[in-house]
Amino acid sequence: MNANERPLDVVILAAGQGTRMKSALPKVLHPVAGRPMVAWAVKAAQEVGARQVVVVTGHGAEQVEAALVGQGVVFARQDRQLGTGHAFACGLDALTDHAGADVLVLYGDTPLLRVETLRALLADHRARGSAMTILTGELPDATGYGRIIRDEAGNVTRIVEQKDASPLERTVREFNSGVYLMDSRATDLTHRITNTNASGEYYLTDLLGLYRAEGAEAHAFRIDDPGEVIGANDRTGLAEAEDIIRQRITQGHMRAGVTIHMPATVYIEDTVVLGRDVTLEPGVILRGDTRVEDGVTVGAYAVVTDSTLEAGAVVKPHSVLEGARVGAGSDVGPFARLRPGTVLGQGVHIGNFVETKNAQLAPGVKAGHLAYLGDVTVGEETNVGAGTIVANYDGVNKHRTTVGAGVFIGSNSTLIAPRTVGNAAFIAAGSAVHDDVPEGAMAVARGKQRTIEGWSRRYWGGMREQVGRKLPWLAGWLERRDS
Amino acid sequence: MNANERPLDVVILAAGQGTRMKSALPKVLHPVAGRPMVAWAVKAAQEVGARQVVVVTGHGAEQVEAALVGQGVVFARQDRQLGTGHAFACGLDALTDHAGADVLVLYGDTPLLRVETLRALLADHRARGSAMTILTGELPDATGYGRIIRDEAGNVTRIVEQKDASPLERTVREFNSGVYLMDSRATDLTHRITNTNASGEYYLTDLLGLYRAEGAEAHAFRIDDPGEVIGANDRTGLAEAEDIIRQRITQGHMRAGVTIHMPATVYIEDTVVLGRDVTLEPGVILRGDTRVEDGVTVGAYAVVTDSTLEAGAVVKPHSVLEGARVGAGSDVGPFARLRPGTVLGQGVHIGNFVETKNAQLAPGVKAGHLAYLGDVTVGEETNVGAGTIVANYDGVNKHRTTVGAGVFIGSNSTLIAPRTVGNAAFIAAGSAVHDDVPEGAMAVARGKQRTIEGWSRRYWGGMREQVGRKLPWLAGWLERRDS
Amino acid sequence: MNANERPLDVVILAAGQGTRMKSALPKVLHPVAGRPMVAWAVKAAQEVGARQVVVVTGHGAEQVEAALVGQGVVFARQDRQLGTGHAFACGLDALTDHAGADVLVLYGDTPLLRVETLRALLADHRARGSAMTILTGELPDATGYGRIIRDEAGNVTRIVEQKDASPLERTVREFNSGVYLMDSRATDLTHRITNTNASGEYYLTDLLGLYRAEGAEAHAFRIDDPGEVIGANDRTGLAEAEDIIRQRITQGHMRAGVTIHMPATVYIEDTVVLGRDVTLEPGVILRGDTRVEDGVTVGAYAVVTDSTLEAGAVVKPHSVLEGARVGAGSDVGPFARLRPGTVLGQGVHIGNFVETKNAQLAPGVKAGHLAYLGDVTVGEETNVGAGTIVANYDGVNKHRTTVGAGVFIGSNSTLIAPRTVGNAAFIAAGSAVHDDVPEGAMAVARGKQRTIEGWSRRYWGGMREQVGRKLPWLAGWLERRDS
Repeated sequence: MNANERPLDVVILAAGQGTRMKSALPKVLHPVAGRPMVAWAVKAAQEVGARQVVVVTGHGAEQVEAALVGQGVVFARQDRQLGTGHAFACGLDALTDHAGADVLVLYGDTPLLRVETLRALLADHRARGSAMTILTGELPDATGYGRIIRDEAGNVTRIVEQKDASPLERTVREFNSGVYLMDSRATDLTHRITNTNASGEYYLTDLLGLYRAEGAEAHAFRIDDPGEVIGANDRTGLAEAEDIIRQRITQGHMRAGVTIHMPATVYIEDTVVLGRDVTLEPGVILRGDTRVEDGVTVGAYAVVTDSTLEAGAVVKPHSVLEGARVGAGSDVGPFARLRPGTVLGQGVHIGNFVETKNAQLAPGVKAGHLAYLGDVTVGEETNVGAGTIVANYDGVNKHRTTVGAGVFIGSNSTLIAPRTVGNAAFIAAGSAVHDDVPEGAMAVARGKQRTIEGWSRRYWGGMREQVGRKLPWLAGWLERRDS
Repeated sequence: MNANERPLDVVILAAGQGTRMKSALPKVLHPVAGRPMVAWAVKAAQEVGARQVVVVTGHGAEQVEAALVGQGVVFARQDRQLGTGHAFACGLDALTDHAGADVLVLYGDTPLLRVETLRALLADHRARGSAMTILTGELPDATGYGRIIRDEAGNVTRIVEQKDASPLERTVREFNSGVYLMDSRATDLTHRITNTNASGEYYLTDLLGLYRAEGAEAHAFRIDDPGEVIGANDRTGLAEAEDIIRQRITQGHMRAGVTIHMPATVYIEDTVVLGRDVTLEPGVILRGDTRVEDGVTVGAYAVVTDSTLEAGAVVKPHSVLEGARVGAGSDVGPFARLRPGTVLGQGVHIGNFVETKNAQLAPGVKAGHLAYLGDVTVGEETNVGAGTIVANYDGVNKHRTTVGAGVFIGSNSTLIAPRTVGNAAFIAAGSAVHDDVPEGAMAVARGKQRTIEGWSRRYWGGMREQVGRKLPWLAGWLERRDS
Repeated sequence: MNANERPLDVVILAAGQGTRMKSALPKVLHPVAGRPMVAWAVKAAQEVGARQVVVVTGHGAEQVEAALVGQGVVFARQDRQLGTGHAFACGLDALTDHAGADVLVLYGDTPLLRVETLRALLADHRARGSAMTILTGELPDATGYGRIIRDEAGNVTRIVEQKDASPLERTVREFNSGVYLMDSRATDLTHRITNTNASGEYYLTDLLGLYRAEGAEAHAFRIDDPGEVIGANDRTGLAEAEDIIRQRITQGHMRAGVTIHMPATVYIEDTVVLGRDVTLEPGVILRGDTRVEDGVTVGAYAVVTDSTLEAGAVVKPHSVLEGARVGAGSDVGPFARLRPGTVLGQGVHIGNFVETKNAQLAPGVKAGHLAYLGDVTVGEETNVGAGTIVANYDGVNKHRTTVGAGVFIGSNSTLIAPRTVGNAAFIAAGSAVHDDVPEGAMAVARGKQRTIEGWSRRYWGGMREQVGRKLPWLAGWLERRDS
């Protein structure tokens, strides 16, 4: 079989405990830039073209497996922690039909390893016809890492651990990342790893010697940025890794035509799609399945999750959107809250302190101030007055309200669901609408105004002393009235 | 004419396309720290004392000219892109009465060039009696830039482009910024530039040879920070330039007596004026024609545009102000939204979830919670209850409401504009005020309370099963009632 | 007396003016990370075990003393600025019973000096049996600082000021921090300092010579990070110091098991206590006496002051909490404002645009939207509808309202305090409740709905031209109606 046609299987080691995380959550489930660390490895494996992906779980296995279920991976349990060689063997055992395939070892705690790097590793491995290619990096001082020892031809002869290294070997700056790409002999050779060493563990690094004992050549593929393979071991490591991914993403968007103000304060997950001439103000957070079309502006400190912003929409500062669709040319906020099921047509205006949920607003609807629109459909050009509440809840169930087009809802009105308001209806300000309103009708549901002259003097008169202390103008007025 | 009395004309080259911006917007219109890049060059030219400023436009000329109209500049169109020498010639042709003046060439994409640097350039040029002074910088590795070649006396003899440079010349670290200050011969000499070269373009750098052929000496003026003359070519360059300007501004304010917490997260445009002992919390954004007087505190994540904050005012976190004036000692927010036309007197209190627009609030007015005050004048010491809405819109037009001094507006009231409420009037909570209220009167416009005993048991009784699942306390109460 | 048993007295010099602060506030009162600078010195002194702490005040003495009152310190006024030796003498005079004690000199403008460093200094001083130990640092270039001159044995012989230093002495990189730890002879020796020098000032550094004249050995204790002893002299210095403290704190929490996203944007004061597996999103600000229990998530841009968040609580983005207690498993925000006196039981839900103040909400209460709950007690499982206002203010006084358990408060209701609403009562939407509501009763206090057919046509008909321009759908409807 031609090397380039060989299938690739990937084993991800994700059984470690990660005590330095000081967490009830298994290490590999700690999120980095919107994904559990192990999910970054799965994503890289799948993007590099893996036929099978096996995740070896151990500590917190149930949690890890639950987090990855449905993502096209197979799990292998490492019930006892007998070393990386044992973990890998567990993983290999879970592969079906591995014959003739290459196998790549990845880790659940190195979220920075890029798929581009893995593609380059794969290309190098196959171009050289290598039996085993070790991904390596170089550090000014590699103390603590296993060092790569090469022969004169540049082939890798040994990996020597820190504690076993001679003074000369300790000056070697090339270190072992632990990522290996191997041909299909790996299955057999892995089962020959023994634990006859000081710590009684099975070491994955022993594979190098086993390959060489077969007469096979091992190569190293050295990456430019050693940071890609350094694992995150505590929360500061998580934060550092997250920041690097964050910068990769923001830089990528900027180069593709997105303006980002103060990019050091902006967070965008890698699932987010941004169009051309999008502008992001400081502090913007874009998460999940979010799509932002051309020419959209997202204002400072807006938090947008799983939402679509159509072309030319404007999200003003301090808005929170989740599961919403904002129509082309609409404007939202500041201080708007769009919740799941919100669908705004073109040219909709949502102003400050307005919440929508399961709300379909047709083109041209305006809800400018202090409103709650829950479980409601609103027709074209309808004006929702300030303070309007669609009272969708009866204490147990939510009910749906339908408002027609061209309706004028006066301020501080309440629509008590389930309610139907016809097209071009008019609701007087301050009304609590408890009956349906037919098309073109006016509904008024409030008390008529009574005005009682001279009442204020009596009212404040009873609190005159306090008024005098707190409200000098009013106290003066009372005095003038009395005289 | 004494060199120091010679007028200065400035030609700004702003015709380039900027394909790396990947934008529908012409390159020089991309904003940096609140101004299109080209406007930074215009500002520098005007501040250094330019008599005439010509902007040479080409790509997106209409847009660029529209953005600069009214800023005291003249435009010259470069209809065909025949090189920088041609662009400059277009600019010179637009100068009127250039005889005897110096001319300075600037660029529309170098927003970091400081006016202090230009002043130093001008002083050096005139002190030396230089014919042509080239602004240069020095980089550890100037690869890609035109290098400055000097003779033994230190005079500049040649500028050699990267592709034409010998190995020795490539080691030169002094590079040509492209900014030139020249005496009035520039007009004639520029028209002698030819395009008889490999690319068939007219090169502005040819001026150096033409001056020297006249027997004139050219000098270089080397700036300390080469970053000032490096253009922004893509969006990452924009962000970097913006960050440098941002830091210049925040550092300047700090040195002048402003406390800024987490200055890396704070954005202040250069148009903003800040008094002494102003405190800015993290994430504050101050834009445009904003003036903040002594002792003001602006809370975290507040966004303030074109507003005046008088002495001692406090803007609490998460407030958004635009076109507003906040009186001395007033406090605003958190979560306040002051819109254009808002004028708050002294000691006004605006609390959370309150919006004002075209609202004049006299000293001592309080609107503490959840209110919309639009198109309204409010007198001294009036108390605006929580949930108050001034309903200013009839579906087509906005109307104005006047509320007197010492008025008490009860919670959840609606004032249906146009309305006049007299001094010391009292509006009962929950009223929809549709008639004017005379001075000292009480208005009540709500339904009278009816109380129906035992109603709850019947209401919940019909949903007993759901209540049992969702509301255990209530289910228990129902049970106790029934037994 | 055994050195380790000797008491320690501390004198903090805090009399300087700090003109570079350009402030009406005395230099040492400028806050850094939530404390006036001088309070950091007081805290360090107390934590290192000081028996007496004397703060020497001068410029702005009243303000400085007022800021520190009640913190267990004694004040000594330095009425005239006669030099550091004089200031220290003033401080010593304020010590009672100093016999046999060590004395440590600290400064009011070095907030970065860590108590761990002082502990190490103390240990070194006592281990060596030193008479005087000088805290020193090392800089690549110590220009401007007093240099430490040692003899061959490494003992300190002299401190030479910049202006008096020989060329050789100026190459010394070890500098004097001004922090000295001395045995009890300091009292006598300090009073022997003279001002017979060029500037006529009493210099504290003269103590070194006086100790040596007694035949006592002086040592230097060199700290690793010279930044700890560099004072903050202007607002940029304040910001830099604050950022270092901020990073110390966030790093410490991360290492202890807190996840912080974008830690460069997060601010936590050192008084804040965080549990394990707490998650802080970008831009979070935690201040004062705040306690966050295990598993809590604080959302982006939330500002939390003096509050307790019980285990598993979730504070959503853009919330502002002060003096509040949030029960286990409760969720709050986004855009929630909890003010002092707020106590939420377990599983309470506070949604967007909701304000609470002096509000006790029993377990299971829900207030999801646009409400003001002031001076109110609410029983279990009560549902507070959107737009509910507890009208607690009569213009002069605040009154208290009590709402029972299992109550349903309909939307846009107003409870006019003081009011009592019984258990399981039901308040109809839009009601202004002005009478108490008995247990199990329904209260309705709103107008009955009237519906006027055909009204809209007449209303809009009068504005037909404007409608035609602004509301095309409505104009079309009017046309269809008319035909």
